[in-house]
Amino acid sequence: MLTVVKIGGNIIDDSSKLSEFLSAFGRIKGSKILVHGGGKIATDIGFKLGVEPNYVDGRRITDIATLELVTMVYGGLINKQVVARLQALSCNAIGLSGADGDIIKAVKRPVHTIDYGYVGDVAEPGVNTAIIRQLLDAGLCPVVAPLTHDGEGTLLNTNADTIAQSIARAMAAVMDVQLIYCFEKEGVLDASQEVIPRITSKDMERLKKEGVIKDGMIPKLSNACEAVVAGVKRVVIGSAAFLDDIIDGNSGTEIV
Amino acid sequence: MLTVVKIGGNIIDDSSKLSEFLSAFGRIKGSKILVHGGGKIATDIGFKLGVEPNYVDGRRITDIATLELVTMVYGGLINKQVVARLQALSCNAIGLSGADGDIIKAVKRPVHTIDYGYVGDVAEPGVNTAIIRQLLDAGLCPVVAPLTHDGEGTLLNTNADTIAQSIARAMAAVMDVQLIYCFEKEGVLDASQEVIPRITSKDMERLKKEGVIKDGMIPKLSNACEAVVAGVKRVVIGSAAFLDDIIDGNSGTEIV
Repeated sequence: MLTVVKIGGNIIDDSSKLSEFLSAFGRIKGSKILVHGGGKIATDIGFKLGVEPNYVDGRRITDIATLELVTMVYGGLINKQVVARLQALSCNAIGLSGADGDIIKAVKRPVHTIDYGYVGDVAEPGVNTAIIRQLLDAGLCPVVAPLTHDGEGTLLNTNADTIAQSIARAMAAVMDVQLIYCFEKEGVLDASQEVIPRITSKDMERLKKEGVIKDGMIPKLSNACEAVVAGVKRVVIGSAAFLDDIIDGNSGTEIV
Repeated sequence: MLTVVKIGGNIIDDSSKLSEFLSAFGRIKGSKILVHGGGKIATDIGFKLGVEPNYVDGRRITDIATLELVTMVYGGLINKQVVARLQALSCNAIGLSGADGDIIKAVKRPVHTIDYGYVGDVAEPGVNTAIIRQLLDAGLCPVVAPLTHDGEGTLLNTNADTIAQSIARAMAAVMDVQLIYCFEKEGVLDASQEVIPRITSKDMERLKKEGVIKDGMIPKLSNACEAVVAGVKRVVIGSAAFLDDIIDGNSGTEIV
């Protein structure tokens, strides 16, 4: 079983949470891939460099200065530090952007009403399963930064949830895959703030109508559902602090 | 034959020279590895971030802020941009630091008179030939940033000439290797500024005494000599602008 785990900026930004998470990640048996997001550190470094967040109609834009910033911070600082720390845990991590080994090709998002700039949507087929398979067979653990490339020399900023889902879906065609999205909460919470252990797409429609599932949870769950439909054996949303329990089936919300 | 090519900051900083070089590099037949240095861009970004070069007794020190800077710029910005550009040339590049795949382990330089900070000297044996071989066999072209790791979670700043030499020497135990150091000049120049096509270690001693070889050329040539002694089949020092000719044996100075 290949385990694909996605962590967001909230873990990256908290050194002690990150340490605990990486130890638990290191303990996962079998082939595994870690996909990481950005974090406030990119914004902080951006401010020092004079690269301020650029919004059009409330949407974050990746201009060329922002692309260089995220290439440095996501692809360099965060990625290499995570790799070095996993190495210390005897996990043979290899840090990659989508350009490395051509593992994820993307298309620069077409301009309709908004020009998002250097943002990439994963191409179909965009995931190089053959190379990823060879890396896994060599005993390596890919650590993937939220960057893709267009194959023509340009890197593109790409959502980490999407990257994790794309890798899991593509790899599901060649091996059994479980996909774990880590976020702030212990799972999808019901109206009384209890974790819902299992959720179906029908439940989801109902919970959306009831307003229990809302905001950022909606795209995250749609993303998870798509993975299940595409053949990913197990998809769980849970807390990075309980990764061991999620792996054992004792924490998080499984999407079925 | 595995070809290991090292380029320095002077090429990295010059976009049109870099393009020409990468095209020539992409044309090299067989397995190949590119090792790149830093460049003025790290200094420029450092100044903006308030990370100024730190010298003790005239020696550059890598403090923690400088380590983070080079991790971002060498391991992220430069490395990923070079990889994306090689991908556009149909060269399946994979950007790595020494921590990635544990390819180069180093020892933090011991403090004698000067504390160099987070600087690594490649361990013996520090090069993971098995993983490098597997990457090459998968058709990948490693693009190596001048960063190593201590295996305990810390990245270390390491000289790119040393990294290139260490990789070439280690790989020479398992396959035929040629090592090409690219620098500003067309090769080692004699007193009348003509390129010396071949040079032996004896010639080198004489030319050092005569003052023809001096300054930064001395460590570069010692480095090259060590590679020859260690079994690297061919070692050439030449200009990045004439890489095709160096490969064909028509440019540069070969160390024999």
